[in-house]
Amino acid sequence: MTLREEYAELQSKGLKLDLTRGKPSPEQLNLSNRMLELPGAGDYLAADGTDTRNYGGLTGLPELVEIFAPLLGIPKGQLLALGNASLQIMHDVIANAMLSPVPGAARRWVEEDEVVFLCPVPGYDRHFGLCERFGITMVPVALTGQGPDMDEVERLVAEDPRIKGIWCVPAYSNPSGEVYSAETVRRLAAMTTAAPDFRIFWDNAYAIHDLTEQRAELADVLDACARAGNPDRAFVFASTSKITLAGAGVAFLGSSTANVEWLKALMSKQTIGPDKVNQLRHVRFFGDADGVLAHMAKHRALLAPRFETVEHVLERELGGRGIARWSRPEGGYFVSLEVPDGCAAEVVRLAKEAGVALTPAGAAFPYGHDPRDHHIRLAPSYPSLTELREAMEAVALCVRLAAEEQKQG
Amino acid sequence: MTLREEYAELQSKGLKLDLTRGKPSPEQLNLSNRMLELPGAGDYLAADGTDTRNYGGLTGLPELVEIFAPLLGIPKGQLLALGNASLQIMHDVIANAMLSPVPGAARRWVEEDEVVFLCPVPGYDRHFGLCERFGITMVPVALTGQGPDMDEVERLVAEDPRIKGIWCVPAYSNPSGEVYSAETVRRLAAMTTAAPDFRIFWDNAYAIHDLTEQRAELADVLDACARAGNPDRAFVFASTSKITLAGAGVAFLGSSTANVEWLKALMSKQTIGPDKVNQLRHVRFFGDADGVLAHMAKHRALLAPRFETVEHVLERELGGRGIARWSRPEGGYFVSLEVPDGCAAEVVRLAKEAGVALTPAGAAFPYGHDPRDHHIRLAPSYPSLTELREAMEAVALCVRLAAEEQKQG
Repeated sequence: MTLREEYAELQSKGLKLDLTRGKPSPEQLNLSNRMLELPGAGDYLAADGTDTRNYGGLTGLPELVEIFAPLLGIPKGQLLALGNASLQIMHDVIANAMLSPVPGAARRWVEEDEVVFLCPVPGYDRHFGLCERFGITMVPVALTGQGPDMDEVERLVAEDPRIKGIWCVPAYSNPSGEVYSAETVRRLAAMTTAAPDFRIFWDNAYAIHDLTEQRAELADVLDACARAGNPDRAFVFASTSKITLAGAGVAFLGSSTANVEWLKALMSKQTIGPDKVNQLRHVRFFGDADGVLAHMAKHRALLAPRFETVEHVLERELGGRGIARWSRPEGGYFVSLEVPDGCAAEVVRLAKEAGVALTPAGAAFPYGHDPRDHHIRLAPSYPSLTELREAMEAVALCVRLAAEEQKQG
Repeated sequence: MTLREEYAELQSKGLKLDLTRGKPSPEQLNLSNRMLELPGAGDYLAADGTDTRNYGGLTGLPELVEIFAPLLGIPKGQLLALGNASLQIMHDVIANAMLSPVPGAARRWVEEDEVVFLCPVPGYDRHFGLCERFGITMVPVALTGQGPDMDEVERLVAEDPRIKGIWCVPAYSNPSGEVYSAETVRRLAAMTTAAPDFRIFWDNAYAIHDLTEQRAELADVLDACARAGNPDRAFVFASTSKITLAGAGVAFLGSSTANVEWLKALMSKQTIGPDKVNQLRHVRFFGDADGVLAHMAKHRALLAPRFETVEHVLERELGGRGIARWSRPEGGYFVSLEVPDGCAAEVVRLAKEAGVALTPAGAAFPYGHDPRDHHIRLAPSYPSLTELREAMEAVALCVRLAAEEQKQG
């Protein structure tokens, strides 16, 4: 049977599978179902006597901050517990920097002729969406397996004052899965930047989202920045979206005291406070930091077999053929699949026509443009194991078919 | 006993009372305590099968929109259910208008030499705080008891293209308590504005917050704008902050289709969606629009006696003396107290030194500046009836003392 015939057979199955987004599965969400009844009858007072039902509490519930500060490695006085989406905090930090000078800035970013962010690739499409929304020019830099190519990053930021930021997903990077090395963190913190108001947007989305019992070893970026004499360089973002309920979690921001005070002053005009009842709900659900880690072990038990399935099918179907490489992440939500240059969009098209939705080719690159058209992001968390196996077999077949047909011209 | 002696006696009581903010009382919050256990075990699916626990649903849960659309008089296709704070939505609409042209705008507001908002006075200090945060110049216009002085508003907006907006709390205005007349609404909707991108910021915070069984009769501003050929003129804001839990409610935005599409496109970059579990919690708690109104009757039962106490004490202590006037609102959260010109700050100071915290004098005016120093905002919702009576007796004494001492020079 030719690959075309196999593909025709695949199409006839009428699959309807979705690997597009890093969404938790229903089984993962079930792990937090007790939250649907929390904080529970008559339970609304915080430890300090605050009535969580009422207005106020701009910086978040102290006991929730207390639980997450050690997990995120951020001093609790520099950690804010906010709304339900870290994306929104990232958005708001940029919007604020556009309209009010960040500490150390000569002017508001909106007054600059051009604002440029470095974008390690492959990266997170929603980060790039924020840049597009704010008219920020994106310059890709390659990831190396240890974080971004630091020689290139250092060279660019040293000479170009228009470069105001860099996006980083430092642990289990979306989608490459790599963890930034201590040396990468040190160099990011210490490098000389032409812009006095350069900022690292440190999206620590997968801080405790390990796929093995080994916790990711990630250097403390705020500490590294402080030690290097650049205390205000990093904004750290995190959330419980992939810990408790994806749409009903709590997002966190950590930074230097100066950055936090800058943000608090602006936030005090924007809101009277976050949803403290939901924060109390999280406190009751976890109890303490160990409770969070115990909960993450349950996610791991559901996620690890999915990643093993991806690895197993890719190795069986594509191993040794010289047409594909893929990541073997030890945490996070994604697998990066690299196919022959010029084939990624075709693979995604073929998969779509066989009923398997993949993230659009190029999505992991600024402006949705993968110059080599070779990268595909796989998101294995949502489907069941059976669906995932079917989907991956379909993807592997599409890769073989696209590669063969490209070779034949 | 002289007033000074009475005041010394008051001070010796060591009161510690707070009338500063329009916060619901613990008894009001108790009315929604069932929410602390909702949506309840295993209850997370929306009517259309959406798993509210997961990501998505940018515009809010359709069944919650369905409940509030008739209460707010907004077509459900034009109503978004969002996060926990309408203040944040107002902030975000302005930030978006600063950075992306609103429908009909020639450019982004940040590119204008100056952006001006009309501020009916007395008004809501947090609205004025937003203007200060965004560098928007505030021009006060007088309220008349039927809404703003429309002759003045029409004259100003017709001639000055820098005027991009007007703040309105149209029902039970904060703090005057007045309800905008149908004629005011019609004129706001129909008036000729020099700015093509002029917007009404219609903060309908007290839409259903009546203190009597009579519902406020407020004309439909979106319909009036559409009929007048200015369909995109108004943004309507509302929330359940003073319906369910002040810090854990749901905020709403309603506007024209063009404005809503503009905002949705920007929001799609900012967030993956609001907290749908909290929205489902609200759906389960209310059931339907009648459930909301039945719930508001319980608030009324707690609030009406507080407003009666304010009226009773003010009338008894200050009536007929020619030194004070005050509002007798039929809804909302505030009483406006007018004292002799030049006395308001002194009354607030005297009250503070007798242990009664009042909203700072001038807070209801742009830049915190009441040019006549005559207005005091009273917020009677939070204290118990006993505390409120004590506080109001103290306030009345402070008014008499300040007026007398001013007269004596």
